[in-house]
Amino acid sequence: MLFTPKREIDRRIENLRPLMEKASLDGAFFHYKIDYYYLSGTMQDAFLLVPLDAEPILFVHRELKRARRESPLAQLVPVNSFSDVKPYVRGLRRVGFQLDVAPYNFVMKFKEILGDVELVNASPLTQELRKIKSPFELSIMERAAGIAKKVYDKVPELLREGMKEIELGGLLEAYAKGLGHEGLLRTRSMNYEAYTWHILSGKTGAIVSQSDSPMGGLGLSPAFPVGASMKRMRRGEPILVDFGICYHGYQVDQTRMYAIGHMPDEYVKAYEVCKEIHYKVLDKVLTGAKSAEIFEYSKQLADDAGYGDYFLGYGEYKVSFLAHGIGIELAELPFIATKQSYPLEDGMTFAVEPKMVFPGKGACGIENTVVLEQGTYRVLTTMDEKITIV
Amino acid sequence: MLFTPKREIDRRIENLRPLMEKASLDGAFFHYKIDYYYLSGTMQDAFLLVPLDAEPILFVHRELKRARRESPLAQLVPVNSFSDVKPYVRGLRRVGFQLDVAPYNFVMKFKEILGDVELVNASPLTQELRKIKSPFELSIMERAAGIAKKVYDKVPELLREGMKEIELGGLLEAYAKGLGHEGLLRTRSMNYEAYTWHILSGKTGAIVSQSDSPMGGLGLSPAFPVGASMKRMRRGEPILVDFGICYHGYQVDQTRMYAIGHMPDEYVKAYEVCKEIHYKVLDKVLTGAKSAEIFEYSKQLADDAGYGDYFLGYGEYKVSFLAHGIGIELAELPFIATKQSYPLEDGMTFAVEPKMVFPGKGACGIENTVVLEQGTYRVLTTMDEKITIV
Repeated sequence: MLFTPKREIDRRIENLRPLMEKASLDGAFFHYKIDYYYLSGTMQDAFLLVPLDAEPILFVHRELKRARRESPLAQLVPVNSFSDVKPYVRGLRRVGFQLDVAPYNFVMKFKEILGDVELVNASPLTQELRKIKSPFELSIMERAAGIAKKVYDKVPELLREGMKEIELGGLLEAYAKGLGHEGLLRTRSMNYEAYTWHILSGKTGAIVSQSDSPMGGLGLSPAFPVGASMKRMRRGEPILVDFGICYHGYQVDQTRMYAIGHMPDEYVKAYEVCKEIHYKVLDKVLTGAKSAEIFEYSKQLADDAGYGDYFLGYGEYKVSFLAHGIGIELAELPFIATKQSYPLEDGMTFAVEPKMVFPGKGACGIENTVVLEQGTYRVLTTMDEKITIV
Repeated sequence: MLFTPKREIDRRIENLRPLMEKASLDGAFFHYKIDYYYLSGTMQDAFLLVPLDAEPILFVHRELKRARRESPLAQLVPVNSFSDVKPYVRGLRRVGFQLDVAPYNFVMKFKEILGDVELVNASPLTQELRKIKSPFELSIMERAAGIAKKVYDKVPELLREGMKEIELGGLLEAYAKGLGHEGLLRTRSMNYEAYTWHILSGKTGAIVSQSDSPMGGLGLSPAFPVGASMKRMRRGEPILVDFGICYHGYQVDQTRMYAIGHMPDEYVKAYEVCKEIHYKVLDKVLTGAKSAEIFEYSKQLADDAGYGDYFLGYGEYKVSFLAHGIGIELAELPFIATKQSYPLEDGMTFAVEPKMVFPGKGACGIENTVVLEQGTYRVLTTMDEKITIV
């Protein structure tokens, strides 16, 4: 089991401080586990206080011994309740908090304990930090990508005519878990869950759902209305496998196409266009163009190829992003999307996913997790990009 | 795929109204998907308004057609943003909201749209409603229990010496998913995730983690520090399989014990005590005793049998509940726990889980999901209760 090294945590805290200063915070609390994991190295039940001018303190509810082993922070303080933090917050006046995810009642309760303190949403600070990955983080994502490659290489061995989508999803997940895949993908949302078992075949590829995705899939019930379903996979259908992998909390996302017997021509052609858009967009990224411009460029490419009506969904269900940043959250900075005004920089990792959806028929597309480094891009998810016929 | 019938949704809304009246609410919003699923039948991206004296309105962001198919509510209104609700909230003055789970910023934004409105936490209302299951809900939980039985019957076929805990977890999950298991368990919490793959063997059974559980397990990394791990399972170790199943959003929870070759005597004895406590507690439930009294009674039984030090965890890591209500959330009313002052009633479903943890060594226990009905109890999770030796 891999722990986050001290130099890594130190660097993250160091990088946080100027952002806190810029936001005029004299302290920031991190209660959301994604954020305090990033800043402390542990996901034990705890919360972190980073004072602007003093050492961070990790307050640990349960379990202290594991938190000590996992976190290189020097100050770990056991607490039974939030009010135990009182002695540590004297003098704090403007304090960061994860107001975008922390429940209202929880914030109000904490406010009471902190007393006369102004709370400010500190999530943009960690989101800003996390958008550039360190070599340590990249090494974990590379291992995640290594698992993903093995999992995708396993598809031809497992996929059989008549098998339910969810059966294939389950078998892939079982195999992935044995390699260290952690089963859940994590999103910063009250209601949104990302199921890893996203296997869509034929018509289910064109089914839209509640998720902000070109294709939702049928899912298993109204309570799990996304991803693989009980539909059986048949010969000559496009089978889309979008199976995120998580290793030590870090995720990679990828999509490949499969078919049993043969892939219909229209999907072969559409898939080629997706691949072309994928690589042309990455070349465009290297020009330093702004995110929103790159997004428009991808739509132009799809239009030019005659696929404007199907690119990233159809009609009112089109989504407004081509790529999402990825790391310990499935959707983090940067995005290649409308309304994103920044260029993409070295150290960023994102999943680029040009996809086509044909209403009532099916879907196809490609997705890779890439990193920008040394002025170029590197695809982390290196499984074969050809359509696999089983 | 099963949809919630109209009479079921109508009854739930009818039962909600007197609770709203009692709380002096003239309307209540339900944004948390667990709650609006219960009251509307869909988990599409939506939110529900129940005015005290008018028909409910489901505002649907995405995807309207699926929401229409899934929800028997008469009024579904498409919305692009929250501000689209403005025309519908005139005259509302005291309004329910899920303040325990809705993020602070989200509530503040909504407050702005609602204008001069007092917000009250309405989660206790749905929690109160949901604590009594209808025959329809029970029929789904019975199907979940049917899947669970098949999954547990599969363990002897899959469990092999030298296999990693997570490998067994993955294989069980793959099998369960093919039967309709939905993979995730759901909890009402910002940070707490319930992984279904809870397979603990020997020493990992005694490892505590961040979760409020007698045994957490080692997990896969500091980012997934609960449940099955890469530890290989050996002969003569207690192997605890606590594998929750979810079907159409409804969960059942159960635990059984396995061993390869043989089970050490101390675990055989401790397991017998767990079973005895399990059934004596259920008899006590039938007397109408209050929840907290039943909990004390269970501790007394463990003490009397000489297992007081190990019952529900050891030392500072003991947990303060023996049973948790279960349904569309993994931990809902009722609890058999300290500070719970109500008796248990007909129609309640809960998972009762007497377990013993021996520090540094391992754990054992039994867990069943039961329903109270017609003045007695019925175990839903009917798999064999003997220790299975493979």
